[in-house]
Amino acid sequence: MAHTEVHVRGAHAEVTAPGFKDDVAVEEPLEIRVDGRALAVTMRTPGHDEDLALGFLFGEGLIDGPHPAAPPADLAANTVEVSGPLNREPDARSFFTSSSCGVCGKGALEQVAVHAPVLPNDGIPRIDRGLLADLPERLRQPTFARTGGLHATGLFTEAGELACVREDVGRHNAMDKVVGWALRDATTTGPPLHQYILCVSGRLSFELVQKAAVAGVPILVGVGAPSSLAIRLADDRNLTLAGFARAGRVNVYTAAHRVIEPTA
Amino acid sequence: MAHTEVHVRGAHAEVTAPGFKDDVAVEEPLEIRVDGRALAVTMRTPGHDEDLALGFLFGEGLIDGPHPAAPPADLAANTVEVSGPLNREPDARSFFTSSSCGVCGKGALEQVAVHAPVLPNDGIPRIDRGLLADLPERLRQPTFARTGGLHATGLFTEAGELACVREDVGRHNAMDKVVGWALRDATTTGPPLHQYILCVSGRLSFELVQKAAVAGVPILVGVGAPSSLAIRLADDRNLTLAGFARAGRVNVYTAAHRVIEPTA
Repeated sequence: MAHTEVHVRGAHAEVTAPGFKDDVAVEEPLEIRVDGRALAVTMRTPGHDEDLALGFLFGEGLIDGPHPAAPPADLAANTVEVSGPLNREPDARSFFTSSSCGVCGKGALEQVAVHAPVLPNDGIPRIDRGLLADLPERLRQPTFARTGGLHATGLFTEAGELACVREDVGRHNAMDKVVGWALRDATTTGPPLHQYILCVSGRLSFELVQKAAVAGVPILVGVGAPSSLAIRLADDRNLTLAGFARAGRVNVYTAAHRVIEPTA
Repeated sequence: MAHTEVHVRGAHAEVTAPGFKDDVAVEEPLEIRVDGRALAVTMRTPGHDEDLALGFLFGEGLIDGPHPAAPPADLAANTVEVSGPLNREPDARSFFTSSSCGVCGKGALEQVAVHAPVLPNDGIPRIDRGLLADLPERLRQPTFARTGGLHATGLFTEAGELACVREDVGRHNAMDKVVGWALRDATTTGPPLHQYILCVSGRLSFELVQKAAVAGVPILVGVGAPSSLAIRLADDRNLTLAGFARAGRVNVYTAAHRVIEPTA
């Protein structure tokens, strides 16, 4: 039988099927280890693995700042080793879930509860509605243009300048990579990122709002639709949640006081 | 401060923000319990919870057929209780992951390995390329039309007739609901679903190919892009994987012998 060849070239792969060629996004498992112990496996697009691991651990409340992270010398690729200690012991219960929500590993409804502060009303950031609607256009997605298969998350200033953008097959991974970058980058003060705006290329789930709130980002905007629980959480944490940002329009679901309306 | 109201109405919710109203998709946690023990929490759109639980457990290889499943009388909503016994003890290790891949709960790279049979070449199903490209149009998505926030999975015959369609904020949940339906429906023979075709409204991840292969469905088509690992797995299991099905066109990445090309 004829078979299909897949050759990985960084974040994209060249596919050769009988009579057909295409470029696709790379998806491979990454094992996140802390002090030698396997803590999580996530399917991700290779690249910025250390930032992904740190951003993930930060979002779970397991670390508060940058920790050393690197591929271990004695293991193959697709593993990243983070140095502890962690803030607390990860939950000892075992769970399976196929959700794309990111609450995996939390085994009871009460554990879905969020440990994120209510965001301040200190007047920063504020953004023009038109600029907010335009942010997705400013997400540069080099691999997406080639493969059509990646989510992107960007961190923007209130002037609409892109500070960091990351792509991944998993939308939560893309945001974890951005937060991990902010933890380690010398030019940012790191979380809480109170002066920034997050922009995502897809839909707005509960989990993405949770990650933004934990990182202290007051505004989250996306190209896609929000869920009911995403809106409830954003409202509860005074986070400005905006969806359907496209073609110059955007819906602001919560905390609209950070959006500057056009003067008539 | 003005707050945003969210009123759940089944699978959609009515949102009332200051000066703004919208309908969004409902996202709420579901705890899956087996014989009283919490096994997983997934964020999902309410509805067909029993099918979601059974399809999930089937995809994990924990059950082989229908089991009794119902909301427990003594617990609030958002819990579903399945009767065992399971085929095996779920992995005892604990993991956290924020991936949207669905390999959550598997704590080592080797555990990503798939336990799905190679699909047979018995001449069924085969489908015209034009009909394959048209299947996404035949996915009726009533809630999506209202909210723009849901993934859909449909089970089709090779004649293009829709046997079952389910919607969810999580794309893996939508497929689990369809497989769970097939396990319980009296008019299907249940897995392996060798005579059927699965169609999804989004991108084609490793995990969706795995679920299709475990259910014994030989053809999986999606509106979005496949990942590198999705193609590798499909090729290995002789599953026909087709992506970018829209506007009368479709890319067939693997096992193209099940696709009938138009005669010149």
